Amino acid sequence: MPDTAPIITLTSDFGLQDYYVAAMKASILEVNPNVRLIDISHQIPPQDIMAGAWVLRNSAFLFPKGTVHLAVVDPGVGTDRKPVAVEIDGHYFIGPDNGLFSLLNDEQYSAFEITNKQFYSERQSNTFHGRDIFAPAAAHLSANKDLHAMGKPVDELVSYRWASPITDDEGIQGMVLHIDHYGNLISNITAEQLRVVQQRGNFKIYVGSAILKKVNTTFADVSDGEPAAIIGSSGMLEVIINKGNASEMLSVQKGAAISVISIKK
Amino acid sequence: MPDTAPIITLTSDFGLQDYYVAAMKASILEVNPNVRLIDISHQIPPQDIMAGAWVLRNSAFLFPKGTVHLAVVDPGVGTDRKPVAVEIDGHYFIGPDNGLFSLLNDEQYSAFEITNKQFYSERQSNTFHGRDIFAPAAAHLSANKDLHAMGKPVDELVSYRWASPITDDEGIQGMVLHIDHYGNLISNITAEQLRVVQQRGNFKIYVGSAILKKVNTTFADVSDGEPAAIIGSSGMLEVIINKGNASEMLSVQKGAAISVISIKK
Amino acid sequence: MPDTAPIITLTSDFGLQDYYVAAMKASILEVNPNVRLIDISHQIPPQDIMAGAWVLRNSAFLFPKGTVHLAVVDPGVGTDRKPVAVEIDGHYFIGPDNGLFSLLNDEQYSAFEITNKQFYSERQSNTFHGRDIFAPAAAHLSANKDLHAMGKPVDELVSYRWASPITDDEGIQGMVLHIDHYGNLISNITAEQLRVVQQRGNFKIYVGSAILKKVNTTFADVSDGEPAAIIGSSGMLEVIINKGNASEMLSVQKGAAISVISIKK
Repeated sequence: MPDTAPIITLTSDFGLQDYYVAAMKASILEVNPNVRLIDISHQIPPQDIMAGAWVLRNSAFLFPKGTVHLAVVDPGVGTDRKPVAVEIDGHYFIGPDNGLFSLLNDEQYSAFEITNKQFYSERQSNTFHGRDIFAPAAAHLSANKDLHAMGKPVDELVSYRWASPITDDEGIQGMVLHIDHYGNLISNITAEQLRVVQQRGNFKIYVGSAILKKVNTTFADVSDGEPAAIIGSSGMLEVIINKGNASEMLSVQKGAAISVISIKK
Repeated sequence: MPDTAPIITLTSDFGLQDYYVAAMKASILEVNPNVRLIDISHQIPPQDIMAGAWVLRNSAFLFPKGTVHLAVVDPGVGTDRKPVAVEIDGHYFIGPDNGLFSLLNDEQYSAFEITNKQFYSERQSNTFHGRDIFAPAAAHLSANKDLHAMGKPVDELVSYRWASPITDDEGIQGMVLHIDHYGNLISNITAEQLRVVQQRGNFKIYVGSAILKKVNTTFADVSDGEPAAIIGSSGMLEVIINKGNASEMLSVQKGAAISVISIKK
Repeated sequence: MPDTAPIITLTSDFGLQDYYVAAMKASILEVNPNVRLIDISHQIPPQDIMAGAWVLRNSAFLFPKGTVHLAVVDPGVGTDRKPVAVEIDGHYFIGPDNGLFSLLNDEQYSAFEITNKQFYSERQSNTFHGRDIFAPAAAHLSANKDLHAMGKPVDELVSYRWASPITDDEGIQGMVLHIDHYGNLISNITAEQLRVVQQRGNFKIYVGSAILKKVNTTFADVSDGEPAAIIGSSGMLEVIINKGNASEMLSVQKGAAISVISIKK
């Protein structure tokens, strides 16, 4: 492995009990035995494309440029959704064109459909393209870094948006788009959107059974067991409970409403 | 790490919360620091030897020849079951001789009991041979590829069979041998066995609350939420629900009956 | 990657579904792309410092000397708890000074607060020091092995003790400090403490609904489904059920009492 061993990250909804992740890794090593493999997550909820997109948004660009990100959340395997190779800002992405890359960048990308059969595995199934198409393609791309060789250009990737918060003079109507391992409630409200409301004066944040009147900058200011609003490491408004599980204690599920309302003077 | 760094895969029922998997990896790296480690699964149900055998069957031979597969599902640790090193078609296997390698090949293998104490760790316990015997033996084998050095030949490995389907002129009486992360029902009925029934004419597949009249070749033909039969990536008949969990929605558990019955003309 | 690629192990309470572990790995690779990454566990119960300390105690010193152990169970992130780099017997540890390193050694260590900002990531958050401080510091330490460069010396690390068993002429009053993946009950009673009672004569071990009169040396002597006491691979008294789950079958939770009582003649 040279000093600059190429990195392939892996993201999927395959879970960890079956052999599916290992099958992808074997397919990669068959093509490029010198690659470095890093798991991002294989516990994306089954077939939840946007949950996969969220994980990629928050982790992919932390890796060095030149990294190949193999991502397989693929409810449409075997249908006519395209297998694609994408380049964004020096990072490469391989996976199904089904919206999985939606949150990475809406403007600047190069995309190619993986039509070049020389990058497919000899083994072919209709149900496991992760093993038979995406993994070998990622391995080839990690070796040759030649996106154009993958196949034919794609003008526009399938792109979904999560519900944007509704903002007006009253404040922001948002939603909880992810609940993490700690039970932290991560909203679709950005730091920038929040700042606009803050600049207008006092405000209240409503979510589940909690009402909060400020945004903390660190957990240090929050008593144990108390809920608080912070800007999390993903740059979004989060509601957390210090040393507790906000989802359980506030009875809030993914998709719940979270509002920031300006207080009239 | 040379270009041809040896690969050791790891399969166990150790789970991921304890330090047990890391202890095996540390034991390997102590002996051979240049090896590449790939986890297959550590979420084999506790002490379920045949579930481990199933995972090995579907993943081991996807890796390059020369790979060492370390597998520890070992309810008999500390008893007189033998620690063994096995070679099948250029692949190496290390683990307890308790049936774990049953599904790999019933005819062609070389097997040795690991009696050579120079391959054991200095650390010895009666309860954690994964760390103290199997991991260091796998590391030595990855370096020397010399099966004969491991100890004395074993004529016959312990071998279990899962219940074979019963086939007759009426059709096939099989069972669900695995339910995967998606809830897909994987049967013990092979594509070949199914083909015999298909060639006789029309048939019905019965499992749980579902009755199916054909085998689909891809998910593309199946409406969302509908059950379907396919030949899965492991080469067995599977019943799945497109974008759904077949185990939950059809109330089918591991071990349940699945039948393919010819329809009389 | 040279033959002696430095090893960084990772231990956290981050879980595996989010991108948090991958974010730490990306931060490491940004600084030192040649490091070997080994996960110990990311399923430490959220914010359970002593559970993290237990895992480190049982695995860290199995790795080769020179290994850097990155450990992040950090309920106090953003408060004034110190980020520290510690050296114990040729092993390095990076993490928060909150007791996480308590079980490694109470006497011999060198510790430094990580105050040298050149080892921080340019990216800075108040809530994710794993990504922004600890991971890059671990990567620098794996490259330079220079603890003194990290910052200023720390005289005394925060150190917690788990409840020690109470021992007297009657026997030992201990507790269950960990229940592992198999449901084995791991106590805070050491092999040495037990030996003192054994040397006095007959004894009984009480835990949950079980009463045991001896300590087995291997599972081989125990009938399937029977509870037994053994000295486990961590050197502590454990109560297990052969091919069963002792926690479930004996209704014993973490923290429960376990007693070894001498029988009067």
